[in-house]
Amino acid sequence: MFDIKTELTTNPKEKPASEVLGFGHYFSDHMFVLDYTEGIGWHDARIVPYQPITLDPSAMIFHYGQSVFEGLKAYVTVDKQALLFRPEQNFRRLNRSNERLCIPTIDEELALEGLKQLVSVDREWIPSAPGTSLYIRPFIIATEPNLGVHPSKKYQFIIIMSPSGSYYKEGINPVKIMVEEQFVRAVKGGTGEAKTGGNYASALKGQEIASREGYAQTLWLDGKGNKNIEEVGSMNIFFKINGTVVTPALNGSILPGITRDSMLHVLKSKGVPVEERNISIDEVVEAYNNGTLEEVFGTGTAAVISPVGELKYLGDKMIINEGKIGEISQMLYETLTGIQYGFIEDTFGWTIRL
Amino acid sequence: MFDIKTELTTNPKEKPASEVLGFGHYFSDHMFVLDYTEGIGWHDARIVPYQPITLDPSAMIFHYGQSVFEGLKAYVTVDKQALLFRPEQNFRRLNRSNERLCIPTIDEELALEGLKQLVSVDREWIPSAPGTSLYIRPFIIATEPNLGVHPSKKYQFIIIMSPSGSYYKEGINPVKIMVEEQFVRAVKGGTGEAKTGGNYASALKGQEIASREGYAQTLWLDGKGNKNIEEVGSMNIFFKINGTVVTPALNGSILPGITRDSMLHVLKSKGVPVEERNISIDEVVEAYNNGTLEEVFGTGTAAVISPVGELKYLGDKMIINEGKIGEISQMLYETLTGIQYGFIEDTFGWTIRL
Repeated sequence: MFDIKTELTTNPKEKPASEVLGFGHYFSDHMFVLDYTEGIGWHDARIVPYQPITLDPSAMIFHYGQSVFEGLKAYVTVDKQALLFRPEQNFRRLNRSNERLCIPTIDEELALEGLKQLVSVDREWIPSAPGTSLYIRPFIIATEPNLGVHPSKKYQFIIIMSPSGSYYKEGINPVKIMVEEQFVRAVKGGTGEAKTGGNYASALKGQEIASREGYAQTLWLDGKGNKNIEEVGSMNIFFKINGTVVTPALNGSILPGITRDSMLHVLKSKGVPVEERNISIDEVVEAYNNGTLEEVFGTGTAAVISPVGELKYLGDKMIINEGKIGEISQMLYETLTGIQYGFIEDTFGWTIRL
Repeated sequence: MFDIKTELTTNPKEKPASEVLGFGHYFSDHMFVLDYTEGIGWHDARIVPYQPITLDPSAMIFHYGQSVFEGLKAYVTVDKQALLFRPEQNFRRLNRSNERLCIPTIDEELALEGLKQLVSVDREWIPSAPGTSLYIRPFIIATEPNLGVHPSKKYQFIIIMSPSGSYYKEGINPVKIMVEEQFVRAVKGGTGEAKTGGNYASALKGQEIASREGYAQTLWLDGKGNKNIEEVGSMNIFFKINGTVVTPALNGSILPGITRDSMLHVLKSKGVPVEERNISIDEVVEAYNNGTLEEVFGTGTAAVISPVGELKYLGDKMIINEGKIGEISQMLYETLTGIQYGFIEDTFGWTIRL
């Protein structure tokens, strides 16, 4: 159906032991590459040995930040099959990011086929120890060698893959997060809902301040009023208040997380009351003060669920659920990882077995 | 004083004719490079033949947008000397950008010395036809091969140079600009005052919309209230209203332009009333309606001055100064280019002759 050429490596790397994996340090033997040239379109889909990228110093990615990316994982199931979790959603979102960044959209079917073939070629790179997975990073960079400020006329779409360790080697420990008051991550009309490098570069400063004060992550407020809650670190955020789970609505400056969307579906399927709406930091403080703030957790591809045990705002510390993981967080974690590793039947039709 | 190794090219390129130069297409024979490694600091300052950059596909610049850059020019004066215009300001601003982007600051003296040596080595690349110059692009990119979201542990600081054509081959023609209502470039607390790739990537969409409607540039309003004026395209903006020149104050989301700063000094030296303050689009419309909006112009390194002949907001078109360049714009253009090309004595101490 698609013409994807494959050149296998003649020099396969040694696979690292699962204990040393960590996140994003090691890379598999192959990568998928697709080129874009103005007037031709996307062309030359291929799987090649993992190799450096060589670009002119004037390549636009080095100057004007025109880039988008995605993140997803491949898992080995209990019955030893390779499994992908909602990969079509990643390529759909990639195209939405492309539109915001003036990058030509890709053929989502071709990207998915390329990914499947790449995972098959590097099947042995999916680690199988509990909690481990193969992190997959599709990304697009502007490669035209030109200093004019305009959309690039050349791009590369690349998929690389990195075997990753268990996020929770020592059990799920809730994290301490700090509300950022000075810096903002994004604003309505900006690039907040696109998965583009600039959002992550912008967020580093808040992260640095949080780390210095002993906090693991930053809680971002909206850029317009510095009141409404947006995201935590690079995750979406959920609050359980008086039995209802509330998460900020997709308002144009929040990343539309695929794990976020999956959590909403799981919650609804279990009959848990759920609301997607604006939620201000004041409402969270009020719920804390009147004893109805029951759980807080972040969601994302890397951690799946990251429970929040402490939230600091304007010098005050809120301790949530006695600093322990809550029932809903535990249920969501077990359900989603159960589906991803094949322990639990996928009644949602989310998984693709290769 | 500084140890900068120089390796000259054995294969010098042919220099393009001044008529074909344009902007940012051609590059000189050499580049300046400085490496950063965590634990060592910035090291190995060197001038080498212009050559491609080779990076691992996981290099952080391809994913998380951690980059900063600068732009300035070298000129050939009437008495055939090479001249730099306020280059120390560029490296000072680069370091302010570095701090926002969590990039280690550079030694500004070393950068300036590297730049001077590089311009000297490629002295013959400064074009001498009227209005031409050698555009200089210092930039820093995050090069650590790692997918974790954190400040990179490795960087490269590079200076490349591009002979550039005259911006106004056919005289200074005022441009038509359009106020952007949907998208924003930056917001207070974001990265707007840093010169980083993400700001430029974010701005492409507004530019695309403006182009589609036949406008040359976008006028950006503030991200919080969509009322206060910020910048035009990638330039700062000035309004002459009832004899006073007004430009938006540096509020945290506006780029602190070096041309902007130079214009303010020239205006003051000529006794023109000047105000740096918030200015809303409503005030501009009101001034237009009561006949006191006398001139509008953008300022930047590339064009020096870009007069605005038409401004579109909410469907209404304002024609400024009958679509012609104004007296103040003309005076500022002649003064600044006069200093830069050595026609006019530099009473400000802005120029460095090599």
